[in-house]
Amino acid sequence: MTNAVTYELLHRDKKTGARRGVIHTPHGDIQTPVFMPVGTQGAVKAMRPEQVADMGAEIILANTYHLYLRPGHEIVKEAGGLHKFMNWDRAILTDSGGFQVFSLGQLRKITEEGVSFQSHIDGSRHMLSPEKAVEIQNALGSDIMMAFDECAPYPADRSYIKDSMERTCRWLERCKAAHKDVERQSLFGIMQGGMYKDLRRESAERIVDMDLPGYSIGGLSVGEPKELMLDILDDCVDLLPEDKPRYLMGVGTPDYLFEGVERGLDMFDCVEPTRIARHGLATTSHGRINIKNAKFERDFTPLDPECDCYTCRNYSRAYIRHMMKSGEMMSAMLISNHNLHFLIHMMAGIREAIEEDRFTEFKKEFYEKYGGFK
Amino acid sequence: MTNAVTYELLHRDKKTGARRGVIHTPHGDIQTPVFMPVGTQGAVKAMRPEQVADMGAEIILANTYHLYLRPGHEIVKEAGGLHKFMNWDRAILTDSGGFQVFSLGQLRKITEEGVSFQSHIDGSRHMLSPEKAVEIQNALGSDIMMAFDECAPYPADRSYIKDSMERTCRWLERCKAAHKDVERQSLFGIMQGGMYKDLRRESAERIVDMDLPGYSIGGLSVGEPKELMLDILDDCVDLLPEDKPRYLMGVGTPDYLFEGVERGLDMFDCVEPTRIARHGLATTSHGRINIKNAKFERDFTPLDPECDCYTCRNYSRAYIRHMMKSGEMMSAMLISNHNLHFLIHMMAGIREAIEEDRFTEFKKEFYEKYGGFK
Ligand SMILES: [Zn+2]
Ligand SMILES: [Zn+2]
Repeated sequence: MTNAVTYELLHRDKKTGARRGVIHTPHGDIQTPVFMPVGTQGAVKAMRPEQVADMGAEIILANTYHLYLRPGHEIVKEAGGLHKFMNWDRAILTDSGGFQVFSLGQLRKITEEGVSFQSHIDGSRHMLSPEKAVEIQNALGSDIMMAFDECAPYPADRSYIKDSMERTCRWLERCKAAHKDVERQSLFGIMQGGMYKDLRRESAERIVDMDLPGYSIGGLSVGEPKELMLDILDDCVDLLPEDKPRYLMGVGTPDYLFEGVERGLDMFDCVEPTRIARHGLATTSHGRINIKNAKFERDFTPLDPECDCYTCRNYSRAYIRHMMKSGEMMSAMLISNHNLHFLIHMMAGIREAIEEDRFTEFKKEFYEKYGGFK
Repeated sequence: MTNAVTYELLHRDKKTGARRGVIHTPHGDIQTPVFMPVGTQGAVKAMRPEQVADMGAEIILANTYHLYLRPGHEIVKEAGGLHKFMNWDRAILTDSGGFQVFSLGQLRKITEEGVSFQSHIDGSRHMLSPEKAVEIQNALGSDIMMAFDECAPYPADRSYIKDSMERTCRWLERCKAAHKDVERQSLFGIMQGGMYKDLRRESAERIVDMDLPGYSIGGLSVGEPKELMLDILDDCVDLLPEDKPRYLMGVGTPDYLFEGVERGLDMFDCVEPTRIARHGLATTSHGRINIKNAKFERDFTPLDPECDCYTCRNYSRAYIRHMMKSGEMMSAMLISNHNLHFLIHMMAGIREAIEEDRFTEFKKEFYEKYGGFK
């Protein structure tokens, strides 16, 4: 019995915890560290899938909660699975829906069994449990499935976090028991424990004991100060096994990517690149720009003069600003393309730097241009 | 002195007025009869320009009124012209802005000089005149410029139409006088005259006397019964010279395209393919479908099983419906692609049929599948 997903460590940076590896999946290899674009409802917003592949993305993320409610996982299964449904033949990671249902506030109720909630679309009642989250992700057919967990809020007191973390561990056992075809899809466990290092350690021990093909660090980037998050990361990345991929959930700005990589994390995802694009914000090698700004009215240079993406090769800031001001989808299409390319290209640079033991130098050079972070 | 745009008649259908030709322009040849996608504000909505080119479009239309108000024609000129600004290196036709300013109702005032109007964007006051419309189009650098005319409403009494038509003729003389660089861009004249055949004839005589490189029939498809429009077309297409392209403005549904081609028209444009796409409507070889319809929920066939466009090769009705219901831009991107491809592919079929003197048979076969029209 071979796990669907395996990790191969290629090289470790001599001066930091950064590591260069490959994740092997049934839908191709993923060079790590990797940034994963998000296709919440079965599409990376404003992008054709082959455009996402062409810029080098080897894996995207999709959301169990959204696809369960609409169109429904049975429909995706009937379509031949999510890869075929959405026309993406590379790897897919699905979250468990936990993050979304816990975020519903008044609309949800937590029990040992799972979380009952009302749909944000039509108010209909549903129950998400470890078994249900696995059933849905089995139907979607993602390469990497995430365990059903509680991403606890910040701040939260120790007893809440302890109870939540322990329940998440029990739920992980149920997820593992429910997931049968481990050669087709791999289930990743999620470390919780809030900002309490001893609880993080306990969580890590319990989930690592279950010998899953990969692990994620959850419950961070939930509103805590950046220093606190980095302190927690310093302490807990090494609690995860070296021979498995390590995934930091919901993180995708350049600064967090650098910090995560430096500490030995391999996988990252965030909706930000396409979300900010719809608001006219572009991430460039010289920092973030707002294309709606009047100073770009007659600026016939590309979004980022150092970028060779489709957008930067063919369009000026003046044009993209015009598209944005005119309410044309083209602005979101072009900026999304650039923002995703920027992060994917940045990660390629990071991987090369790790191979050459110059991650620290690369990070420094990046920030000298990018600014805003020491 | 050579005109920028010239027409070459290749073949005339033996049984109808349909004709097969080529329009030569500074940005490439256009096989006619042709359907021209519309890029109102400098983008064919929800499409990358190379996708429009890849499906065979050789010319697109852009709107003078919109580009004059935003971003401003001077900015487009500074950018290197509209082709460069919008990343489209094939031919462009610009309208004159007349249709839009006359449609403004209370916000505009007509004089012999031109039309003064308030911007629909910010209420600022502007004047569009024959000279101004030419100046703007010169700045945009379109291959084909349209004369500044009044597209008179329907119904309208004879004296209104006569006055309007005569003013449009005087304006055409001013447009011609204002347009200097005829080797770079060609100015087309527009026939008016409402539903009055004698006024159409008078209009045609006067504009043909000016020996312009092409002519359009304006003032049709403005709400009159289809039979009346076809009756007017029967009478006035032949009033235009055989050695110049003939353009029917604002027409782009399959039935009108077939009727126009049958009567000897060469060029057509319409915003409909991309506009209806944003509402979930697809034109298929078996008629129009509304993708929001519940019956498509588990329909894993393409929008049009006989279509080989990008959309139909890669996505199911179920997926496109899911995108539409989920508010994803992807639905407009995919349906726009299909709808444009459908009309462009249909026109290619029409051209082939004309070459083989079987236009009538092709039209009959088309409607046997498409339905809804005898
Ligand atoms: Zn770029
Ligand atoms: Zn199609």
